[in-house]
Amino acid sequence: MSRRFISQLGQRENVDETFLASQKQLRANRNGNLYLQLQLSDRTGSMMAMQWNASDKIFDSFDDGNYVRIQGTTQLYNGSIQIIVTSIEPVDSETIDEADYCILTEQEIERLVNQLGEKLRQLDNPALRNLAECFLSDEVFMSKFSRAPAGVKNHHAYHGGLLEHVVGLIELVQIVTPQYPQLNPDLMTMGAFLHDSGKIDELEYDRSFAYSDEGQMIGHLVMGIKILEDKTQQSEQLSGEPFPKELLLRLKHMIVSHHGEYEFGSPKLPMTPEAIALHFLDNLDAKMHLANQLITTDVIGDSRWTSYQPSWGRKLFKGTPAEDPPAEPPAE
Amino acid sequence: MSRRFISQLGQRENVDETFLASQKQLRANRNGNLYLQLQLSDRTGSMMAMQWNASDKIFDSFDDGNYVRIQGTTQLYNGSIQIIVTSIEPVDSETIDEADYCILTEQEIERLVNQLGEKLRQLDNPALRNLAECFLSDEVFMSKFSRAPAGVKNHHAYHGGLLEHVVGLIELVQIVTPQYPQLNPDLMTMGAFLHDSGKIDELEYDRSFAYSDEGQMIGHLVMGIKILEDKTQQSEQLSGEPFPKELLLRLKHMIVSHHGEYEFGSPKLPMTPEAIALHFLDNLDAKMHLANQLITTDVIGDSRWTSYQPSWGRKLFKGTPAEDPPAEPPAE
Amino acid sequence: MSRRFISQLGQRENVDETFLASQKQLRANRNGNLYLQLQLSDRTGSMMAMQWNASDKIFDSFDDGNYVRIQGTTQLYNGSIQIIVTSIEPVDSETIDEADYCILTEQEIERLVNQLGEKLRQLDNPALRNLAECFLSDEVFMSKFSRAPAGVKNHHAYHGGLLEHVVGLIELVQIVTPQYPQLNPDLMTMGAFLHDSGKIDELEYDRSFAYSDEGQMIGHLVMGIKILEDKTQQSEQLSGEPFPKELLLRLKHMIVSHHGEYEFGSPKLPMTPEAIALHFLDNLDAKMHLANQLITTDVIGDSRWTSYQPSWGRKLFKGTPAEDPPAEPPAE
Amino acid sequence: MSRRFISQLGQRENVDETFLASQKQLRANRNGNLYLQLQLSDRTGSMMAMQWNASDKIFDSFDDGNYVRIQGTTQLYNGSIQIIVTSIEPVDSETIDEADYCILTEQEIERLVNQLGEKLRQLDNPALRNLAECFLSDEVFMSKFSRAPAGVKNHHAYHGGLLEHVVGLIELVQIVTPQYPQLNPDLMTMGAFLHDSGKIDELEYDRSFAYSDEGQMIGHLVMGIKILEDKTQQSEQLSGEPFPKELLLRLKHMIVSHHGEYEFGSPKLPMTPEAIALHFLDNLDAKMHLANQLITTDVIGDSRWTSYQPSWGRKLFKGTPAEDPPAEPPAE
Amino acid sequence: MSRRFISQLGQRENVDETFLASQKQLRANRNGNLYLQLQLSDRTGSMMAMQWNASDKIFDSFDDGNYVRIQGTTQLYNGSIQIIVTSIEPVDSETIDEADYCILTEQEIERLVNQLGEKLRQLDNPALRNLAECFLSDEVFMSKFSRAPAGVKNHHAYHGGLLEHVVGLIELVQIVTPQYPQLNPDLMTMGAFLHDSGKIDELEYDRSFAYSDEGQMIGHLVMGIKILEDKTQQSEQLSGEPFPKELLLRLKHMIVSHHGEYEFGSPKLPMTPEAIALHFLDNLDAKMHLANQLITTDVIGDSRWTSYQPSWGRKLFKGTPAEDPPAEPPAE
Amino acid sequence: MSRRFISQLGQRENVDETFLASQKQLRANRNGNLYLQLQLSDRTGSMMAMQWNASDKIFDSFDDGNYVRIQGTTQLYNGSIQIIVTSIEPVDSETIDEADYCILTEQEIERLVNQLGEKLRQLDNPALRNLAECFLSDEVFMSKFSRAPAGVKNHHAYHGGLLEHVVGLIELVQIVTPQYPQLNPDLMTMGAFLHDSGKIDELEYDRSFAYSDEGQMIGHLVMGIKILEDKTQQSEQLSGEPFPKELLLRLKHMIVSHHGEYEFGSPKLPMTPEAIALHFLDNLDAKMHLANQLITTDVIGDSRWTSYQPSWGRKLFKGTPAEDPPAEPPAE
Repeated sequence: MSRRFISQLGQRENVDETFLASQKQLRANRNGNLYLQLQLSDRTGSMMAMQWNASDKIFDSFDDGNYVRIQGTTQLYNGSIQIIVTSIEPVDSETIDEADYCILTEQEIERLVNQLGEKLRQLDNPALRNLAECFLSDEVFMSKFSRAPAGVKNHHAYHGGLLEHVVGLIELVQIVTPQYPQLNPDLMTMGAFLHDSGKIDELEYDRSFAYSDEGQMIGHLVMGIKILEDKTQQSEQLSGEPFPKELLLRLKHMIVSHHGEYEFGSPKLPMTPEAIALHFLDNLDAKMHLANQLITTDVIGDSRWTSYQPSWGRKLFKGTPAEDPPAEPPAE
Repeated sequence: MSRRFISQLGQRENVDETFLASQKQLRANRNGNLYLQLQLSDRTGSMMAMQWNASDKIFDSFDDGNYVRIQGTTQLYNGSIQIIVTSIEPVDSETIDEADYCILTEQEIERLVNQLGEKLRQLDNPALRNLAECFLSDEVFMSKFSRAPAGVKNHHAYHGGLLEHVVGLIELVQIVTPQYPQLNPDLMTMGAFLHDSGKIDELEYDRSFAYSDEGQMIGHLVMGIKILEDKTQQSEQLSGEPFPKELLLRLKHMIVSHHGEYEFGSPKLPMTPEAIALHFLDNLDAKMHLANQLITTDVIGDSRWTSYQPSWGRKLFKGTPAEDPPAEPPAE
Repeated sequence: MSRRFISQLGQRENVDETFLASQKQLRANRNGNLYLQLQLSDRTGSMMAMQWNASDKIFDSFDDGNYVRIQGTTQLYNGSIQIIVTSIEPVDSETIDEADYCILTEQEIERLVNQLGEKLRQLDNPALRNLAECFLSDEVFMSKFSRAPAGVKNHHAYHGGLLEHVVGLIELVQIVTPQYPQLNPDLMTMGAFLHDSGKIDELEYDRSFAYSDEGQMIGHLVMGIKILEDKTQQSEQLSGEPFPKELLLRLKHMIVSHHGEYEFGSPKLPMTPEAIALHFLDNLDAKMHLANQLITTDVIGDSRWTSYQPSWGRKLFKGTPAEDPPAEPPAE
Repeated sequence: MSRRFISQLGQRENVDETFLASQKQLRANRNGNLYLQLQLSDRTGSMMAMQWNASDKIFDSFDDGNYVRIQGTTQLYNGSIQIIVTSIEPVDSETIDEADYCILTEQEIERLVNQLGEKLRQLDNPALRNLAECFLSDEVFMSKFSRAPAGVKNHHAYHGGLLEHVVGLIELVQIVTPQYPQLNPDLMTMGAFLHDSGKIDELEYDRSFAYSDEGQMIGHLVMGIKILEDKTQQSEQLSGEPFPKELLLRLKHMIVSHHGEYEFGSPKLPMTPEAIALHFLDNLDAKMHLANQLITTDVIGDSRWTSYQPSWGRKLFKGTPAEDPPAEPPAE
Repeated sequence: MSRRFISQLGQRENVDETFLASQKQLRANRNGNLYLQLQLSDRTGSMMAMQWNASDKIFDSFDDGNYVRIQGTTQLYNGSIQIIVTSIEPVDSETIDEADYCILTEQEIERLVNQLGEKLRQLDNPALRNLAECFLSDEVFMSKFSRAPAGVKNHHAYHGGLLEHVVGLIELVQIVTPQYPQLNPDLMTMGAFLHDSGKIDELEYDRSFAYSDEGQMIGHLVMGIKILEDKTQQSEQLSGEPFPKELLLRLKHMIVSHHGEYEFGSPKLPMTPEAIALHFLDNLDAKMHLANQLITTDVIGDSRWTSYQPSWGRKLFKGTPAEDPPAEPPAE
Repeated sequence: MSRRFISQLGQRENVDETFLASQKQLRANRNGNLYLQLQLSDRTGSMMAMQWNASDKIFDSFDDGNYVRIQGTTQLYNGSIQIIVTSIEPVDSETIDEADYCILTEQEIERLVNQLGEKLRQLDNPALRNLAECFLSDEVFMSKFSRAPAGVKNHHAYHGGLLEHVVGLIELVQIVTPQYPQLNPDLMTMGAFLHDSGKIDELEYDRSFAYSDEGQMIGHLVMGIKILEDKTQQSEQLSGEPFPKELLLRLKHMIVSHHGEYEFGSPKLPMTPEAIALHFLDNLDAKMHLANQLITTDVIGDSRWTSYQPSWGRKLFKGTPAEDPPAEPPAE
């Protein structure tokens, strides 16, 4: 029998399915009774779950990160589907098809790593190509880079999300760059590769996703500069040649300015063609993923609009599925 | 002898060359003496010119829009090159190579019109394709559309500039759209085609460039809606079928929201994937042209920075030509 | 026995009264028990109502828009009075005095329509008077215009609210205009009449009040331009004379700029005396109604302040009723 | 022979006329030659004047505030008409018709004072009426109040301007207030009377107009509170009755909040119906005068637009005189 | 047995302790059952308390401001510790050690008053010293000034808080002023003394803390000016000498501008060295107290970050206690 | 005969004095005549100078950075004193008293360096003390640090200005820190020392002051992080002990956040007590110096106000010298 995914669940539905558990908590309600609250997820999304009249024993029967079999009933609460759990029990991870739970499987991540390597090894500029090689051959860096999410919430907030965003952005950058001869293609590719590299330490992503202390106090723009400086030094030692000074300056500037505005935490505004272009394309890619996610996972099934997104100051239009404009024209 | 273009002129240089004249004025200085002030341009740029001790006779000897032979000397004034004119006389336009004076020649504009037609006739969606055909076969519209600048100053401020911007944007849109399956390609192309169509009446561009009254009081976003509504009605009459309602709504929304922010005159924020993408790509294209123009025409020849751009809140980095990063690596 | 209105209800009061029902929902609480939630209104206001342990049967026993007899008890919840319902049953609308439930009765609306007609037919300018006549004789337009609310919430959010706001604004405009000779009285009246006309399609107001898709994506400023353009064309055909171009431009500008600031969705700032004046007077009228409503319907009975209004960034001062400054002076 | 007023002067015109002189300065140009610069005004406006090759003797031959006969020629400089003076000599003020030079004559100011007195003596509320009487019978206050301008530049910047603005605003307030029953008419009138009273000391207006030190460091909103407090105390002593506390609070609040926004120097936002209404009506009146002045005095005679007003972020539309919409309809 | 303070309470702890009660309310839950809600405090903080199934009798058994013995259990609710009360009874205030409940005891307040007096009596400038004496000898003023909190929430929100803030600020001002010779030390001290004096009437602080009507409608900046003006007049009468005009102006300016920005309610920006310095030092002192309070009272015990502070737009870093940087270096 | 300094010069004064020359340019006026423009300075300020009818020979007779004897006359131009030069000739620097020309002499700089060293060597925390030692013993760093200005214009814009600002700020920090026990004194001192250290490479200050490319594209906040990271590594190698991680994080955070707001280029807001305090004290010190400089160097001698400072949005009040409040009280 095929699995029923979170994105498919409606109201008042009986559920008996396996999910990935996280953020479990034992809490007391106003009357002092204990209840269990946790987050359940599969690759299509996540939802809250409650078990009333819980106990320490239930709480201790599984850990965050375990797969658990859940029995219960769905209900709508504050506009979101949640599950009232009647039974919860851990499941052996051997019996699980990982592809049902992760947005990116190990294979997909590996494929993305290979794509990244290919693209970087084709750079024409020898200094940039050498520099890229230093990153690619740094196992600690690559391990973090391929596992980090691109954010705690919003777009690409899953293991491998940073890598997926970066590879997607490099593709985008490489098809757009030829339109504007003033753009240096190699700089564009390296900027796309490194613009968010500080996120490998800005975020913590072992169990659940959070900002590290350094992430909150220094931020990935400044942290990325440090990563780039260290690797440039290493690259110079390997190649025996000084890294071109202005080239490095342009690359650092792309990192430091890629949020585009002071109010979004860029200490400098983009002032080179490459920095300007990277800012717009990064923003486009992030917003396209965010919009897609909001539209496809919105639970208010019968509305043509998503719920209001305070941080974005707007709702998004989902439209009428049947009349959707991308529909194929009738055969002619 | 090859022509000396405006972009090639330095300080304290003797000039004897033909330019396109505009904005001529006869003014009095503080001592009451008359002088002639006018703008001279060729395809590489424009500059101010002054003739001291001028007279009504000189003033009447040519019109804005004439080609004039100028003799005089260049000097730097407030950071710009200008010419102190000693002699000015009109030149027969028959003896002129138009390609020296226009950024886009008639042939280039014609080629862009053909490109536009090809792209629009390949739309899959029949309603949008029919609509596009109505625009293409409207001679008045096409004549204005292929002659209008994209702005009074800033990017694409020359005859054919709007057309060039639109064709460039359609190309950009068509290579980017496949990256995001949620985007409807035909909507993206039509949105790129029509987003600035209100500019054909927002601007006046017969002699010199200016905003029309309607342009200043209503603006090209709202004026473009009217143009689209009229053509949609015409298209419905021709095809005998109602234009899909939601499709029209999405297209109008792209026009009305393409400035992206309230403060830039969009009465609505982009709320569909296509409107969001169009805003970023339009902005990218405009800024790439603007940056290119600022960097290549900046007269402060020996500086690695352009002058400060108040409306953009920054200088742009021009860099050291010799060390410019796009330079080819030495043959290996 | 005289009716007890919503605005008169206090805490912990037994209620047995008839109200207008809307927004009924059957929801589950955290324990999975069903309850009915609905909104009850009469002409003095509206309140939420809950019936615990509800069922599908109760839910199906009436429709939104029905009059229902409610038995139950009031209580204060989050600063608002609500009713805990013990019994709910539909009531025959024949037995009802409509004036108890609508802020504006049919007669009042009719009277407002007549007032509007009178005022418009007295315009001096023949082009504007003809245009007005085209609107007045368009039954579909007038039917919508006299039924639409002026907003989904905030000021004039009830059937006929748009009409009442417009007639009030025309009155205001007509007494203020003579103070400023530079204002064209006929333009002022027509601007007041048409400034919000796009709301007839921006909003949906058959059952409950909401924004239409077009309202959210295009907005009533732009939609009003279309309505005006269509009617102007019709007026030209009827009169056989072209509508004065600059007059139309000034009228359109008043519509497009009447929100006064970019951040409130005006794509253009007011740039004519009439547009400037209309913006201030429209704003004054809207804010006076809003303030009145906030002060008179505020339930925190013993406070001299209304609750904080986030969208307005302030509380309003209600003052001490007994010492209220408008009090009549003692007979002298 | 009838006088030629400043507003009637065009370019390159010979002038032999009497004006009011102010702001005279003796300055050196770059070559070290002295020239005289001064401002000339009559009731239709003001303009700069220059006399080249001036001397201390010329400079000392008249004072600011004198009437002077000027001979010279007009020219356009930076978009404004100025005069190149060839001869300047003082004129006996006895021979002058004051009405040619002041926007408001002594009689007009007296008439406005009377109007103000009438309106205030008709207040119903005895406490407010007594308070008003204390102001009216304070000769020092009334002398300043009837002589002060409403501003240094912008609207009503002439002797009596404050009084004219206040009387106009009281009229406006008194015709608008009946539209909104929640407004206390007497409070509205007193608020309009006193809202700008701090300007009598915020500005200096004996010779030329400037801000006083106190005006710049404390501002007329706060200074007006002091004036009101002192007079209230005096009124209480006279009447032997305490001034109603909440009434005073409401009146002070109207003064302190009448700029409407923090960024315009209001330390509090309007929070009573009267304060909200006063803010909008004061703003309307000020902007109507400003717009009128900009449109009627704009020297760019052949343009349909005024020059750009940086502080207002816009140009104003003057329109085509002949086609002006206020034109009378043809007799029917 | 030593007392257990609020700041020491953890989750699920049995409590039998005496607290100060305030804000008691009898409320109905959704099922119509009554419960008692109140705030309990001691000198380390405050928390909410609930007693389910309460009655009018319990509600009437004590008053806000009483000391009450509470029995019950703690629980975490929405990130804060609260108590589920099982028994509540009033306690005789004679048996209480006030120092356990007030942040500042009567003695501490008295000591601060003495400190203030000493500092003010040492001013060199006789006019300022006389003025200060008028304040110090005004019993009503001093009684309010020594009892008022500095705010309703945020920093120094307790009886005596204003006094403590002012004495602390005077100390700060007196050690900083010698660094900048352009600062007038006596003006700095008086400005620090009086900058918030309007708070004695802006706030109400008998039972609980709230803004007075005048506080909300006029604000302590403007109210402080009135207090200063009255006292200056009194001082002039006592000394028989006029208070130096510019000195008074500078002092008033310090009060009126000390919030530093329009958006924080200053009608004027600081424009004298003393006003600029006072703004920064006042802000520093307030923020240091606020930060200290947020960090020391934050209940999320195991986090290195406080919760997000919306009004401040950030979290604060608490750090790892053990590794805390202020740790003493090992003995060398 | 004693020297006449720039700050002492009035209008129309004959000058024969030696100054430091910079920014010399040979320019053409509108008539094509050459003139020499240069800046002259001594320790009290700088002014522009013009020599009309200049030649290449004059231009080549001295270099920027030379001392030159100037003969000519002063005049007021656009509110500033400038000199019309009649003779200019280079002067042997041996004959010069450096103290007349530099705001800080070599001795003063040396004294500041010693003060800095003393303060840093007294730090209690061994890790910070070791780190400080690494900076102090780095000759390249110290040479730049003691020569750099604190800015290109505004406060401390002279050789040694950065050092003077930092030593002053450390003094300020050390007297303020004891007021707030939550502040770590050693962190405060180190933060004050290093907050602007990136300026040693952000600025270029050999001949004249300018931003370096890296300064403009990366900025001193991010550049300071790199400097700190390198030195920390060096310090770890010297001491053989790891630098405490959280301590380093707190120090970096102070650098990165010290501008306090995103809009001033801080990529992070201050989130530790030390970062918050440093931001306020740095801002206070900078603004005190700027205000002092504006007030003391303002040339509009007879005004009680400085000219308007656009970047600061205000004028500053200079006051009436004679009545200045700091004046000593008459002996009693």
